[in-house]
Amino acid sequence: MSELHAPDVDVVAVGNALVDVLSHESDEFLAAHDRMKGSMTLIEADEAMALYAAMGPGIEISGGSAANTVVGITSFGGTAAFIGRVGDDQLGTVFGHDIRAAGVRFDATPSAGGSGTGRCLVLVTPDGERTLNTFLGAAAEVSPDDVDADLVRSAQVTYLEGYLWDQPAAKEAFRYAARVAHAAGRRVALTLSDRFCVERHRADFMALVDDEVDILFANEAEICALYEVDAFDDALQRVNHHCEVAALTRSAKGSVVVSGDEVHVVDAAPLAGSVVDTTGAGDLYAAGFLFGFTHGYDLGSCARLGSVAAAEVISHLGARPESSLAALAADVLA
Amino acid sequence: MSELHAPDVDVVAVGNALVDVLSHESDEFLAAHDRMKGSMTLIEADEAMALYAAMGPGIEISGGSAANTVVGITSFGGTAAFIGRVGDDQLGTVFGHDIRAAGVRFDATPSAGGSGTGRCLVLVTPDGERTLNTFLGAAAEVSPDDVDADLVRSAQVTYLEGYLWDQPAAKEAFRYAARVAHAAGRRVALTLSDRFCVERHRADFMALVDDEVDILFANEAEICALYEVDAFDDALQRVNHHCEVAALTRSAKGSVVVSGDEVHVVDAAPLAGSVVDTTGAGDLYAAGFLFGFTHGYDLGSCARLGSVAAAEVISHLGARPESSLAALAADVLA
Repeated sequence: MSELHAPDVDVVAVGNALVDVLSHESDEFLAAHDRMKGSMTLIEADEAMALYAAMGPGIEISGGSAANTVVGITSFGGTAAFIGRVGDDQLGTVFGHDIRAAGVRFDATPSAGGSGTGRCLVLVTPDGERTLNTFLGAAAEVSPDDVDADLVRSAQVTYLEGYLWDQPAAKEAFRYAARVAHAAGRRVALTLSDRFCVERHRADFMALVDDEVDILFANEAEICALYEVDAFDDALQRVNHHCEVAALTRSAKGSVVVSGDEVHVVDAAPLAGSVVDTTGAGDLYAAGFLFGFTHGYDLGSCARLGSVAAAEVISHLGARPESSLAALAADVLA
Repeated sequence: MSELHAPDVDVVAVGNALVDVLSHESDEFLAAHDRMKGSMTLIEADEAMALYAAMGPGIEISGGSAANTVVGITSFGGTAAFIGRVGDDQLGTVFGHDIRAAGVRFDATPSAGGSGTGRCLVLVTPDGERTLNTFLGAAAEVSPDDVDADLVRSAQVTYLEGYLWDQPAAKEAFRYAARVAHAAGRRVALTLSDRFCVERHRADFMALVDDEVDILFANEAEICALYEVDAFDDALQRVNHHCEVAALTRSAKGSVVVSGDEVHVVDAAPLAGSVVDTTGAGDLYAAGFLFGFTHGYDLGSCARLGSVAAAEVISHLGARPESSLAALAADVLA
């Protein structure tokens, strides 16, 4: 541990700055447009326009996986910053307004290159599952130049989304941020983001988990894809001792946190109603977990904070919390 | 009745094309920003920027009073078209996509003049009441040139929002559309829109109700403001016989419809939960009423269809229906 000063920020995240466009669609719509339910597909501008034209009326809510996570952390009462790229357009203004209004530090100047702000077309089926179609736009332009090294050094945890690995410059930003964080004695957290993202970059992600990642977030499909196993328990045995902490989410089955010989199996938090939209469930689990982690809670409490945040976000449309997570945390920690 | 052909469209509306930006704010926020709860205030670009900067994270949903109404009519299974102006920008794309995806005909080409798409900053307080702050932008550029006379002639009802009266060119569009509709033997409907809008244009609105309007929509505050009376019943006695039908809404007290000697007093539809956001309540009441009216239902049924649509829209955030109103109508008409 080489730091000289106490951290100023709980978590700094590097991620794709996106505005979500959510619409309710049928399973038949997914089939007609050749989408695999629950997945994230990268699409180009023309495909985005065609899919948008076919979609029903939408609701626009700021999104982006790691951005959702840092907004969750501030809702718990923590401090956070976000590094990502928006375009010089109305959606960029919306993204910047929303994340700053949530209390997250976000200093990026919009990309001047003419790329529009990235957007994610979110198809929500009647079962509440979300299927993501992402046009990265300006988000894809994140590079090491965007990474404020002082900010990274000032944060207890640097949180990176696996989605960044899809773009070469973003991947370099990711590597640079991890290097700076570790040089300052800070921790690096990674979410594997998506099963297909893992399959695209399996070897890289395995090396990252071994060498760079202190805190790993993954859902069941992602961690099984990483180790090419079918059974969750097999993946659990594989990941242990490869990073300091692994927090593995299993939807309604709750989560399992493993850290050396310490293992916690924590139930999902109860829902007031039905699942409306699973968008952001993993992002908000990470928010609760990292808030707990950066505030000195034991790993079991971190998992429970993650569960309560995930339960909040799946009870309504969109991936940003609508209720104060600090209020929900008080119940969990009581 | 001079028309030669059966109408092609149930309702064509002329109105302000707006995207709503909704955020949850406290009563203290309204006081600090000098807003009167429940009102609509026109604001300029700089004031819109300042208010937006002060607002919490937002959700963007297409809005605009008359636009909400025609979307409601298509959700009931009716046919509708919309005349209004958007800018050549992302919010204009959003508005156009959403209204067309709802099945409403909307042929406008975006304004080339550089005005941005209009937006309404909607402050939703914990009681579910909405306070509107409208930056008209391109919406203010509606003029008689935008009114497709053939379209107006093809519609059973031409529906106009009182808000248009705030802009000289829009007022002319309003007058022109009414003239074309009547020359084709069609009906003209007007919503008074807002109590302060009525106070700004009382003499004009009184003359309109006498001479131009066949179907009048107003809430209790608006109809009392029109006739400068305090008691709803006094306003009711005044409006009767000044237009063919007056549909007067009273929030939780339901609505009163008067047409000559025929009077219906109809309860509000029951809510499944609590009032989340009253944005669009009047717009959707008009949708249900006009759907019923253009499909040959008696005036009492029209009012019940209005009530059920209003109840749907106040049960969630935003002024566009989230459920199929046709399904709800089946229960009302059973």
